[in-house]
Amino acid sequence: MIIVMKPDVNKQQINNVISLVENHGLKTHLSCGDQVTIIGVVGDKSKLSKCNIELLGGVEKIVPVTESYKLANKKFHTTSSTVKVRDVVIGGDQFTIMAGPCAIESEKQIIETAHAIKKSGATMLRGGAYKPRTSPYSFQGLEEEGLKYMATAREETGLPIVCEVISLQSVETAYKYVDMFQIGARNMQNFYLLKEIGKTKTPVLLKRGLSATIDEWLNAAEYIMSEGNENVVLCERGIRTFETATRNTLDISAIPIIKQKSHLPVIVDPCHATGKRAYVNPLSKASIAVGADGLMIEVHPNPSVALSDGPQSLPPDEFDKLCNELRPFSKLVGKNL
Amino acid sequence: MIIVMKPDVNKQQINNVISLVENHGLKTHLSCGDQVTIIGVVGDKSKLSKCNIELLGGVEKIVPVTESYKLANKKFHTTSSTVKVRDVVIGGDQFTIMAGPCAIESEKQIIETAHAIKKSGATMLRGGAYKPRTSPYSFQGLEEEGLKYMATAREETGLPIVCEVISLQSVETAYKYVDMFQIGARNMQNFYLLKEIGKTKTPVLLKRGLSATIDEWLNAAEYIMSEGNENVVLCERGIRTFETATRNTLDISAIPIIKQKSHLPVIVDPCHATGKRAYVNPLSKASIAVGADGLMIEVHPNPSVALSDGPQSLPPDEFDKLCNELRPFSKLVGKNL
Amino acid sequence: MIIVMKPDVNKQQINNVISLVENHGLKTHLSCGDQVTIIGVVGDKSKLSKCNIELLGGVEKIVPVTESYKLANKKFHTTSSTVKVRDVVIGGDQFTIMAGPCAIESEKQIIETAHAIKKSGATMLRGGAYKPRTSPYSFQGLEEEGLKYMATAREETGLPIVCEVISLQSVETAYKYVDMFQIGARNMQNFYLLKEIGKTKTPVLLKRGLSATIDEWLNAAEYIMSEGNENVVLCERGIRTFETATRNTLDISAIPIIKQKSHLPVIVDPCHATGKRAYVNPLSKASIAVGADGLMIEVHPNPSVALSDGPQSLPPDEFDKLCNELRPFSKLVGKNL
Amino acid sequence: MIIVMKPDVNKQQINNVISLVENHGLKTHLSCGDQVTIIGVVGDKSKLSKCNIELLGGVEKIVPVTESYKLANKKFHTTSSTVKVRDVVIGGDQFTIMAGPCAIESEKQIIETAHAIKKSGATMLRGGAYKPRTSPYSFQGLEEEGLKYMATAREETGLPIVCEVISLQSVETAYKYVDMFQIGARNMQNFYLLKEIGKTKTPVLLKRGLSATIDEWLNAAEYIMSEGNENVVLCERGIRTFETATRNTLDISAIPIIKQKSHLPVIVDPCHATGKRAYVNPLSKASIAVGADGLMIEVHPNPSVALSDGPQSLPPDEFDKLCNELRPFSKLVGKNL
Repeated sequence: MIIVMKPDVNKQQINNVISLVENHGLKTHLSCGDQVTIIGVVGDKSKLSKCNIELLGGVEKIVPVTESYKLANKKFHTTSSTVKVRDVVIGGDQFTIMAGPCAIESEKQIIETAHAIKKSGATMLRGGAYKPRTSPYSFQGLEEEGLKYMATAREETGLPIVCEVISLQSVETAYKYVDMFQIGARNMQNFYLLKEIGKTKTPVLLKRGLSATIDEWLNAAEYIMSEGNENVVLCERGIRTFETATRNTLDISAIPIIKQKSHLPVIVDPCHATGKRAYVNPLSKASIAVGADGLMIEVHPNPSVALSDGPQSLPPDEFDKLCNELRPFSKLVGKNL
Repeated sequence: MIIVMKPDVNKQQINNVISLVENHGLKTHLSCGDQVTIIGVVGDKSKLSKCNIELLGGVEKIVPVTESYKLANKKFHTTSSTVKVRDVVIGGDQFTIMAGPCAIESEKQIIETAHAIKKSGATMLRGGAYKPRTSPYSFQGLEEEGLKYMATAREETGLPIVCEVISLQSVETAYKYVDMFQIGARNMQNFYLLKEIGKTKTPVLLKRGLSATIDEWLNAAEYIMSEGNENVVLCERGIRTFETATRNTLDISAIPIIKQKSHLPVIVDPCHATGKRAYVNPLSKASIAVGADGLMIEVHPNPSVALSDGPQSLPPDEFDKLCNELRPFSKLVGKNL
Repeated sequence: MIIVMKPDVNKQQINNVISLVENHGLKTHLSCGDQVTIIGVVGDKSKLSKCNIELLGGVEKIVPVTESYKLANKKFHTTSSTVKVRDVVIGGDQFTIMAGPCAIESEKQIIETAHAIKKSGATMLRGGAYKPRTSPYSFQGLEEEGLKYMATAREETGLPIVCEVISLQSVETAYKYVDMFQIGARNMQNFYLLKEIGKTKTPVLLKRGLSATIDEWLNAAEYIMSEGNENVVLCERGIRTFETATRNTLDISAIPIIKQKSHLPVIVDPCHATGKRAYVNPLSKASIAVGADGLMIEVHPNPSVALSDGPQSLPPDEFDKLCNELRPFSKLVGKNL
Repeated sequence: MIIVMKPDVNKQQINNVISLVENHGLKTHLSCGDQVTIIGVVGDKSKLSKCNIELLGGVEKIVPVTESYKLANKKFHTTSSTVKVRDVVIGGDQFTIMAGPCAIESEKQIIETAHAIKKSGATMLRGGAYKPRTSPYSFQGLEEEGLKYMATAREETGLPIVCEVISLQSVETAYKYVDMFQIGARNMQNFYLLKEIGKTKTPVLLKRGLSATIDEWLNAAEYIMSEGNENVVLCERGIRTFETATRNTLDISAIPIIKQKSHLPVIVDPCHATGKRAYVNPLSKASIAVGADGLMIEVHPNPSVALSDGPQSLPPDEFDKLCNELRPFSKLVGKNL
């Protein structure tokens, strides 16, 4: 941590800052330049968490130099992690495709979809039973009934299932059915929910918030991990920018950045990122090329009658074509698909 | 709703779209231009919610022309609403100042602050018992113990109290103590939570999400109102942009826009918007001048030892000066402060 | 300047960095913590401009601690500046209103507008002769003919005139007519143009770029000032964000920030910021309350037939009403209007 | 074009709008719903460019349904274009790599680099002679001297050269030397400059502005094309968002969107997009996979002493490795590299 002092700082003020820091058991290094005086702080800065150093006389600003997340940080866990969901391994030399409808609509729909995606090469089934929707007048999901259909689809196909949870109540219900919890973008900083699922051992797919920095995203993972659940997989799904040609802007650079800063696996959701089916195929190829560990793709047997996000869903034949086109890319990057 | 067709659309495709719409009981108007063909749709578009018209052959895009929120919409409720929190009226010709610490730290701290802010002119006491923090290693709040201190402060001063809730559990606990629930920016689209507090009659202060459009914000209010609780006050607290000189960018234009689009009262939180104490005074003046119905200001008896957000908190003497400087502005805009 | 080293840095790498810095005549301070090693650099960092220290072995990142602008910086020029345009003073205890049409359309239009705005209280006339438009098929301005009309309007009313320049050629032409050059948002980082007008003594109104940080904006002012022209007035006109309810988002916080970081006067353009006439009045009041030194307002004798930006222009009677409503605010903040 | 009327519109107001539109020779279609009345407008809307319909009584807003660019629009030019720079074809089944230093520093530097990149597989040489820099105190480029070095490098290697121009003066000088003009991000809306290069026949590389929408970018291309120069290649180089982990956010979705909306070739500049060398390799692979027509890569013989943007430049050996790794991807997507 660096404390930058104001240009007109006086000796007394500098000494006050140094005393405060050293009284908490940390060391300081003073550098006095012509234009600026800075105080370097060495030691465990959490000891200073109750001191608002920025408010001391003569202080201009504080510049942090280390990340606040530890368990998710590659600096302290230098090899890449893998997360196991039943028999499916995410990360390492696997390229995992999770597919299924945005919203679960019926038992028939989900079982039909599960068979189709398995045949094409997906190894996990996704489906939403609790749907966070911008308007209260939109379809909100089948809840527990939907989870039961998902479980039936797993029995029929063997595919592990991943479902979004949105509250403690939904965690308690979903816990009995799902193999992986999904935290959606809007709940990425619902810290209460993160802590609750951190107390389970169920793997978690943590989507990036619409306006979350990569640093905040890794801190959200830290919330889950610090409660004891280290089975976290990250999912980039687009951020909010000024551009309106796509629903969100896929931040593809986030993949190599996560690979550098964290040991956690990271996948891409190109459907929510763009909101348009036509862009899913090229962005899926970009994702595998850039080093992602997998994809989450919306597949619906009949997108034109989907109750949620039909315009970004692929019909089974397009999904099959996509998987076939991705296979040579996976070979090129040395991953199994 | 307008359906814009692709340039190469054929007659059959146009007829398909028209049939689908009319079969659901709505009317259409067809306009064929040299460059573009559009189909205007008249009637209750919620009847089409299960049709993904965007996916029909020949359709380029859908352009909505009406807002999806109704209860929060000024078009259907043309006079401005007021919200009553005990004896305090928010909206109308009142200018309401809510003040208090970011986090409740002790009984002494909150009672001392309550007396100070009341003396200066605040009519509501704020204080955080549940603190959503980016890092799991930061102070997370005193929870129910903090709420008890708030209730004691209310008894001593008569000031109604407003506290953030972050989960169903915290709603159940806070319900017994607080006069107004606060929904923080990170939970603005925690729809589950919105619905829960919508089932109560307790007034709600709904902060705007970091990356929420005004339209999404009003839809979040609609979630609460559609469950029966119409006592919603909006709070602009800054949005996330590329600018890093302030913690967030206060979207001051949101105030006149809300006044035009909705009948709900709207206040401003200049402390969270900027993250720096020095800007609170000028931005408070701008807020009253632009037409806001009130302010939420962080006040701490000793900001340099605050456990949360000290750098943006005012000490009591600065808060007193601020209130005194705001009074002539309130007269100018015809509001009581 | 702070050099943050990687966690696995070795002694040799640290010594390399220190040698490089000290060989350029600067001093270093080394701080070795458990988690991080940092090297503080004291002295004139421009001496290091040819060394890419970030690329040396063991270096993680560079953290600058001082601003790169000097002439525009309040640290080195602690009293607020005023800029004189003919007899009009901008800054200090003056509140200056510049008004006029977005685009100059005819001699009659501009003279009529000039008389009207003068009567209402404006002290400068604005008008665009060179119009940067998103589409090449939109009206591009009357060029020199328009400047002549502006000069005639000045003769008739005595109001100094401000006009946008967009190229060296337009500077050479406008130089003969105008009292103040305007640099539009799209040209804020047209450094070649900034340098050219820096070689004149004509006052400059420098609008903020759509996506320029405050730091970049002050560096753009520095470009002009470093060529010898210190008569720079800044103009906040909205930044680009995700919000689409307004054309841009007025960054009202920029005013107190500029007042803290720079000695230059700063005004607000609420018309371009919002793109909608209805918001000009409340945002003008917010601007005066927050501490701006003036306003730029679009006024057109008949907005419904304006060739450019009619929807955001005020007709003369609304402008007159606005000026009357602003006067008590100017008294309150101690400025002459 | 759709004209949406206010809820309380009256018949007279509707008739006024219809008369105005029809008097300009366009047709209208009226749709009256319970909640909203809309008027569809069919015909050449440029005839209405002088009418500010938004300001007529009863009008709520105008919704455009067609793009304002024509020459760059795929709707009117349905096959993909290629652009020829000397013998190099950009677009079609070619994948073109342009490489070279950010800034030209010496004859030796540029010739050495040219030989190296040619050997690795680049077919065009880039180099900056005019450098737009945020601070006036940074290195600004060798100007004409640099262009001469570039021309020498072309003679020695046969590689066509691309250089940024920033003003009419630089266009006039560069015209004699370069094979392709580059318009940088900061000048994407310097319409005066766009028109000037539109009058030449020299191919143009048009970088996307930091905060330009795809629509604005294509309108900027339209400026060049409408003057007669249709040899435009687009270059995505990152947009400005809230994320600070990279210098900008590479908008990879822009590639498939451009391919859908325009017939112009589009390449990617991963160096400026991220600002960090480590991300250039993965983002280059993502670019080829997503369908880009080429790359612009910064290569410097010795990045640690580069005068500009060293941290994002590759040394020749890393560039060679990159080209080798890209080749199998180019085969996969059916492009020649």
